[in-house]
Amino acid sequence: MRIKEILKLKGENQTIKARGWIRSVRNSKAFSFVVLNDGSCQGTLQVVMNSDMEGYEEASSLLVGSCVEFTGELVASQGKGQNVELQAKGVHIYGKTDENYPLQKKATSLEFLREQAHLRPRTNLFGAVFRLRHQLAMATHQFFHERGFYYLNSPILTAVDAEGAGEMFNVTTFDLEKMAKGSFDKVDYSRDYFGKPTNLCVTGQLEGECFAMGMGSVYTFGPTFRAENSNTPRHLSEFWMIEPEVAFMDLEGNAELAADFVKYLISYAFDHAGDELEALQKYHQFSAKGTNEKYENHLLVLEKVKDSTFERITYSKAIEILQKSGKKFDFSPEWGVELQTEHERYLAEEFFKGPVTVTDYPKDCKAFYMKQNDDGKTVRAMDVLVPGVGEIIGGSQREEDLDKLIKRMDEMGMEKGPLWWYLDLRRFGSAPHSGFGLGFERALRYISGMKNIRDVIPFPRTPKNCDF
Amino acid sequence: MRIKEILKLKGENQTIKARGWIRSVRNSKAFSFVVLNDGSCQGTLQVVMNSDMEGYEEASSLLVGSCVEFTGELVASQGKGQNVELQAKGVHIYGKTDENYPLQKKATSLEFLREQAHLRPRTNLFGAVFRLRHQLAMATHQFFHERGFYYLNSPILTAVDAEGAGEMFNVTTFDLEKMAKGSFDKVDYSRDYFGKPTNLCVTGQLEGECFAMGMGSVYTFGPTFRAENSNTPRHLSEFWMIEPEVAFMDLEGNAELAADFVKYLISYAFDHAGDELEALQKYHQFSAKGTNEKYENHLLVLEKVKDSTFERITYSKAIEILQKSGKKFDFSPEWGVELQTEHERYLAEEFFKGPVTVTDYPKDCKAFYMKQNDDGKTVRAMDVLVPGVGEIIGGSQREEDLDKLIKRMDEMGMEKGPLWWYLDLRRFGSAPHSGFGLGFERALRYISGMKNIRDVIPFPRTPKNCDF
Repeated sequence: MRIKEILKLKGENQTIKARGWIRSVRNSKAFSFVVLNDGSCQGTLQVVMNSDMEGYEEASSLLVGSCVEFTGELVASQGKGQNVELQAKGVHIYGKTDENYPLQKKATSLEFLREQAHLRPRTNLFGAVFRLRHQLAMATHQFFHERGFYYLNSPILTAVDAEGAGEMFNVTTFDLEKMAKGSFDKVDYSRDYFGKPTNLCVTGQLEGECFAMGMGSVYTFGPTFRAENSNTPRHLSEFWMIEPEVAFMDLEGNAELAADFVKYLISYAFDHAGDELEALQKYHQFSAKGTNEKYENHLLVLEKVKDSTFERITYSKAIEILQKSGKKFDFSPEWGVELQTEHERYLAEEFFKGPVTVTDYPKDCKAFYMKQNDDGKTVRAMDVLVPGVGEIIGGSQREEDLDKLIKRMDEMGMEKGPLWWYLDLRRFGSAPHSGFGLGFERALRYISGMKNIRDVIPFPRTPKNCDF
Repeated sequence: MRIKEILKLKGENQTIKARGWIRSVRNSKAFSFVVLNDGSCQGTLQVVMNSDMEGYEEASSLLVGSCVEFTGELVASQGKGQNVELQAKGVHIYGKTDENYPLQKKATSLEFLREQAHLRPRTNLFGAVFRLRHQLAMATHQFFHERGFYYLNSPILTAVDAEGAGEMFNVTTFDLEKMAKGSFDKVDYSRDYFGKPTNLCVTGQLEGECFAMGMGSVYTFGPTFRAENSNTPRHLSEFWMIEPEVAFMDLEGNAELAADFVKYLISYAFDHAGDELEALQKYHQFSAKGTNEKYENHLLVLEKVKDSTFERITYSKAIEILQKSGKKFDFSPEWGVELQTEHERYLAEEFFKGPVTVTDYPKDCKAFYMKQNDDGKTVRAMDVLVPGVGEIIGGSQREEDLDKLIKRMDEMGMEKGPLWWYLDLRRFGSAPHSGFGLGFERALRYISGMKNIRDVIPFPRTPKNCDF
């Protein structure tokens, strides 16, 4: 039985087995107390070993991290903090640890634990993070499934630079060593695996549009990649993205869907990972002690967002607010330039004191595929900004008019050839459609309150870091 | 309202709007019949336009694939095959098609549709395939979630060759053109994005083990990659894999979990994609007509598997059965050699007439990480074989003993350095654990009855093919 189920039992003296990893051992004269966790939940099981138990000597000398199975009687606990405890009658040792075990009480900085990413799911903190991650993934599927969306696995390998940003990883089966040794005028891609230059996807949106234009409502939830040289607490080279795409939906519907989704994620976390959120909050509170960082209970912020109405303003209005704010920004807000995080946070945290969706950005700030407004200057883009983070979602209504789309691609100097199929969507049975993207780790960082995005993904990939 | 919901209504003369893509238009003197599909379900809505309807002339001349919105009254239908139909009062045309629209009635070979992968979700057949795909993805999450497993996103980018098979895609941010032009003795990987040679993952298992050894039961469901030069109806270069990994589970438990999972997938498909399965079955039946192919109703095969007990035999016993079968195989079955698909299919289809799990393979047939049996010759591997396909799942109990694992890696000439973290799992708090892998597209091919695996993934990637 897993500890999650054991902790739900009443201590009615039934005999059970409990397995897991030792979190701590405390020895007194006649007893030994072991705290056991098996990862099934945030809670731990207290095991009491009497000194006359068979194997007591070996068991009471086990170190933190050892893997054991106890057989014993589950009884009501006298101690604080638990309802039941296990009176051990026997013990089986699966695997010991020694003093080299990296997860000692003292050595638990987040930086250090990142270097021990294979072991960190055994800690209280990362157990909470990764169970929360699981619940939010389930929430994502449930949210879209309930609304009649179909899950789409957009391709990871692609020959298209969908964002036109160019920060992509090359994929090849060429032997790089051999390649470097030779001296050629040109690479003969016809001899590469796919017969042409190939990259890792930066988005699944364009393929999402193909499917929306036939299946109505779809969403992707898969890995995407950016080869930017960004070493920040907000950037990963490999991250999971959620991208719904909906036929016949305009920007209004898109903004509503995005707000509903964010609120759903938060509610689901409270409902399905309450213990984990609480453990995280306590961790943040504890970490802030003795530092200069201002501690703010992030659960209260989430509670507020969960029940709020998302404000909606245009980009032009946002610029006006920022310019009139009297606030000193590092970058002075100016029409025509993308909002900076400091601007976004001012709007959400100080001006609206809640989530706000900014729409109708200057076309030059945004990608080629966004629906052009009649003013000739702005596009039907939207960014959802939340307190504490800034932008958490970016999306748009897509340009469904073939001529306008081609004109925009030409203006931007884009090659149309590789996107013939994308243009086909406008050529044959075109329809209005919209969608957005939510970086799963950005959302998880927000809801967990973890400061570094590397601490919410199992094995983070960042510049010069591809361990495990 | 989506057509899925519309078709559930009774025809009580309510006024509704229906949007979608035209599947067919049939004109008579006074009426026009339009068949409309919006991808929300297998069903279509019949729309009747009276010739006195505003915009009738344009609407009745629309070609297949056009995207429209009808407003009208939903009434009980007199015609066969539908309960309700829409009496159109008005029409709005979103996007027309012309005679260049590729999805004409005549041109619908699967090969041709693969070249139109951006449009094929609009067809009856691929609508069925991709809605079924969605349902089986949901089934997967639900199956594991219900059993207390946590979803793990194992990394896609990796510096490890986890299977030791070497058929991997290289990932780099080096400019290949520049690289080819130079002439260097060695590649200076310290200047590459990750500072070392990096590949796309072939499995998430090793990382799954890290998480199982702390969170108990986990599963991955993500893309994996093989750079094999295999152009077959069973191989993809990019495919989605499901890999559960469970602490304290032995091979018996693993085999049970695998059988339960396969049966769950099939049951879920019948329960949640019945219309799609039926459409697929009809397609297969229709396709077999006038060919030499023997048609077998694959739904009857699935029904049987769903309710069957999976037989269990050892590899040694399997070899014995094959050798005694009197059957002529292309490859003669011999102890020590991996089973061929023809062997697997004989076992499942002819001998056991149902699914069978083969265990305890010769160690030289299998990967380094499998638990070694005491006989010194075999390992605790298992393959699940099903009629019609052969192997659908491969798994094993993992070697949890550090010394045995190191000895095996040495025997196989493996470098231990890159796997220090994997060895740590045995060094600190080791425990018995097991898991398996199911190729999602293999399962989908099996359940859909589609013959080519390229037809069950949205945008297939195979040698020389990375379009869209």
